[in-house]
Amino acid sequence: MIIENKILSLFPKLIKILTKMGKVLIIGAGGVATVAAFKVAQNPDVFTDITIASRTKAKCDKLAKAIGNPNIKTAQVDADNVDDLVKLFNEVKPDIVMNLALPYQDLTIMEACLKTGVNYLDTANYEPRDEAHFEYSWQWAYKQRFEDAGLTAILGCGFDPGVSGVYTAYAAKHHFDEIHTLDIVDCNAGNHHKAFATNFNPEINIREITQKGLYYKDGEWIETEPLEIHQPITYPNIGPRESYLMHHEELESLVKNYPTIKLARFWMTFGEQYLKYLDVIQGIGMSRIDEIEYEAPLADGTGNAKVKIVPLQFLKAVLPNPQDLGENYEGETSIGCRIRGIKDGKERTYYVYNNCSHQEAYKETGMQGVSYTTGVPAMIGAMMFLKGLWKRPGVWNVEDFDPDPFMEQLNKQGLPWNEVFDGDLEV
Amino acid sequence: MIIENKILSLFPKLIKILTKMGKVLIIGAGGVATVAAFKVAQNPDVFTDITIASRTKAKCDKLAKAIGNPNIKTAQVDADNVDDLVKLFNEVKPDIVMNLALPYQDLTIMEACLKTGVNYLDTANYEPRDEAHFEYSWQWAYKQRFEDAGLTAILGCGFDPGVSGVYTAYAAKHHFDEIHTLDIVDCNAGNHHKAFATNFNPEINIREITQKGLYYKDGEWIETEPLEIHQPITYPNIGPRESYLMHHEELESLVKNYPTIKLARFWMTFGEQYLKYLDVIQGIGMSRIDEIEYEAPLADGTGNAKVKIVPLQFLKAVLPNPQDLGENYEGETSIGCRIRGIKDGKERTYYVYNNCSHQEAYKETGMQGVSYTTGVPAMIGAMMFLKGLWKRPGVWNVEDFDPDPFMEQLNKQGLPWNEVFDGDLEV
Repeated sequence: MIIENKILSLFPKLIKILTKMGKVLIIGAGGVATVAAFKVAQNPDVFTDITIASRTKAKCDKLAKAIGNPNIKTAQVDADNVDDLVKLFNEVKPDIVMNLALPYQDLTIMEACLKTGVNYLDTANYEPRDEAHFEYSWQWAYKQRFEDAGLTAILGCGFDPGVSGVYTAYAAKHHFDEIHTLDIVDCNAGNHHKAFATNFNPEINIREITQKGLYYKDGEWIETEPLEIHQPITYPNIGPRESYLMHHEELESLVKNYPTIKLARFWMTFGEQYLKYLDVIQGIGMSRIDEIEYEAPLADGTGNAKVKIVPLQFLKAVLPNPQDLGENYEGETSIGCRIRGIKDGKERTYYVYNNCSHQEAYKETGMQGVSYTTGVPAMIGAMMFLKGLWKRPGVWNVEDFDPDPFMEQLNKQGLPWNEVFDGDLEV
Repeated sequence: MIIENKILSLFPKLIKILTKMGKVLIIGAGGVATVAAFKVAQNPDVFTDITIASRTKAKCDKLAKAIGNPNIKTAQVDADNVDDLVKLFNEVKPDIVMNLALPYQDLTIMEACLKTGVNYLDTANYEPRDEAHFEYSWQWAYKQRFEDAGLTAILGCGFDPGVSGVYTAYAAKHHFDEIHTLDIVDCNAGNHHKAFATNFNPEINIREITQKGLYYKDGEWIETEPLEIHQPITYPNIGPRESYLMHHEELESLVKNYPTIKLARFWMTFGEQYLKYLDVIQGIGMSRIDEIEYEAPLADGTGNAKVKIVPLQFLKAVLPNPQDLGENYEGETSIGCRIRGIKDGKERTYYVYNNCSHQEAYKETGMQGVSYTTGVPAMIGAMMFLKGLWKRPGVWNVEDFDPDPFMEQLNKQGLPWNEVFDGDLEV
């Protein structure tokens, strides 16, 4: 096994030396992008050239300065605008673009990749702005075009989606002949000492949580009311936490890729306080995603203007910035896959998980654990591509590739994993 | 007593006939202004000429149309702008202006009254926009100027402040030699069938409720945390409701005008749901009254603009409009004064109150009970002035005038009162 890995690890290095690949363009300058940029910079043997671009160049400059690497370049880009992206891609000529902007922008960035011959990676699937709904169909529709262009697109390469799919692929490869049930369990037992704050973009977070629940059973998708199904689940080093069944995008690709799965669910923990806040935010209309016409004084003092405001986007401006939560964030996250299935004719269970300390994440990158657990796998995904290990024309989910080198990097890059065999899965 | 009243009631009629007074200008077109305009129109013997003005003339036109009186005139005015007000007052030449706009605008309207020789009435005392704080000092400072100009200003002539002061004056005049304790109790036992809505302007309502509590005891003002002190109080025809001690403006003038008072408090009921919502609204920062810079697309589609938005004002735009609550509003309000003191050397208690049905109020004016209980007394106050009964140069609170004709009108104009002598005050 060790020898096998050594041979495997020599091969991509050779490819890299021959092709001098390693040019990455990061789009975004939020918490996840910050972590990814830190980790990219920590791996200069793979990432030989780094550019960070976002709507506000000053944010990129600040991030480059925080990393302290004078070779990092920065740029301004409007990721909603394909032409703007094409111009940037043609200037930077990256091998791969890491899309760590908003899920609304997945399609414009994919279009720009096709127009400029750039490979693609993201961490969350596309959703339209005017509808809180996500599914892979919009992005899977690009499969043929990426294939024809000889370009690789890696979808959903954060933690969940991302590591959750890699864990499942690893379980399927090494520990199961058939997977029968898959429960992805996501616990944030951190305390940020704020009355209310979301751990990532509040707009995206609240859209996701206020959606109806969805899970897969015996070949069918079953819809629930938002957060209708819940139960306590015990998390390692944390203890029992009430966990709520939610729709989560990786279920869609995983049940497709592992057709033996009979039951697939996603669970996330929420505190009572968080749910109370969420309930009220909906009750007062501040989670609305339609536009309201509102008259307000212009900031430059030249009079009043009628503007269109999406309440949820305005709420984002008022809530604490998730990027500012890190300093006082205590506790840890615990995310994993609880799997039941058959190996050599016998039923078995398998639980693979990572626990991540908010404080450790903050010390390393200035960001809390939720950004960290998403940004590190994004970097590893780009690394897998640049090493030639996850390189295949088309549009792919993470479980479409070999999980082993990714799992190896998780241990090296700050997200070590643990396994429990034949334990009580609780779910 | 009856003969006395008859003589009194003939006197102002004579004055009116001689001077042809009766021209009223209502500023505002919200719930309270709507009720006041309906009631003003119901009393054409007193109000011979009616103009309604607000920032949006269309609202005034709609209101005039709802009342169905073709003689009602409407106008546009920016009540923040003294010059604009002066222009309007000079055109309309009202005998009295009823200020039913926002408390922020009390001082600009008073200034315009002084510049144009118009008498003044309002229902809520001035507060600055940038500080959630109310006290009479700002308006009392105008006393000498109104006196010198020979003009009457009647402050706080809604229900509370307003009827609460008239009740107290009536109690002092007829039932007590000394008032020792005064508890104003305000219960809204209505149900509007919305997750959350305020009964009047949400901005003003939330500013008021999130303030620190304040009560008067033995010559001193004692501050409490917001809603810190509470107890159940039983309301007639309603039952016990948890009631919270709040600062309320009429306490300031009443303890000054009745120096025998040792303890003066104001209590208001809130449901658990309402308080939960309030707690979250504060927690997420949406009750903030400072300005946030926010970039948003212009409504006319010509690009983006940076505007300054006060979160609480934006929340107002998202919350249900209090004016739209009436249709499905059930239940009633109950507001009164519970008084303890001495009459003829003996201790006694006195409770005087009104119960108002939201549905009855809606049927008559299209507005719910909270608007009704404020708008009717405002009309009666203007009527008292025009009849010459409450006419005295200077700036006055309602208890500075004779309560008897006002109390008589309350019974006639839809807010009949009830008395309980020597009952258990509970407080």
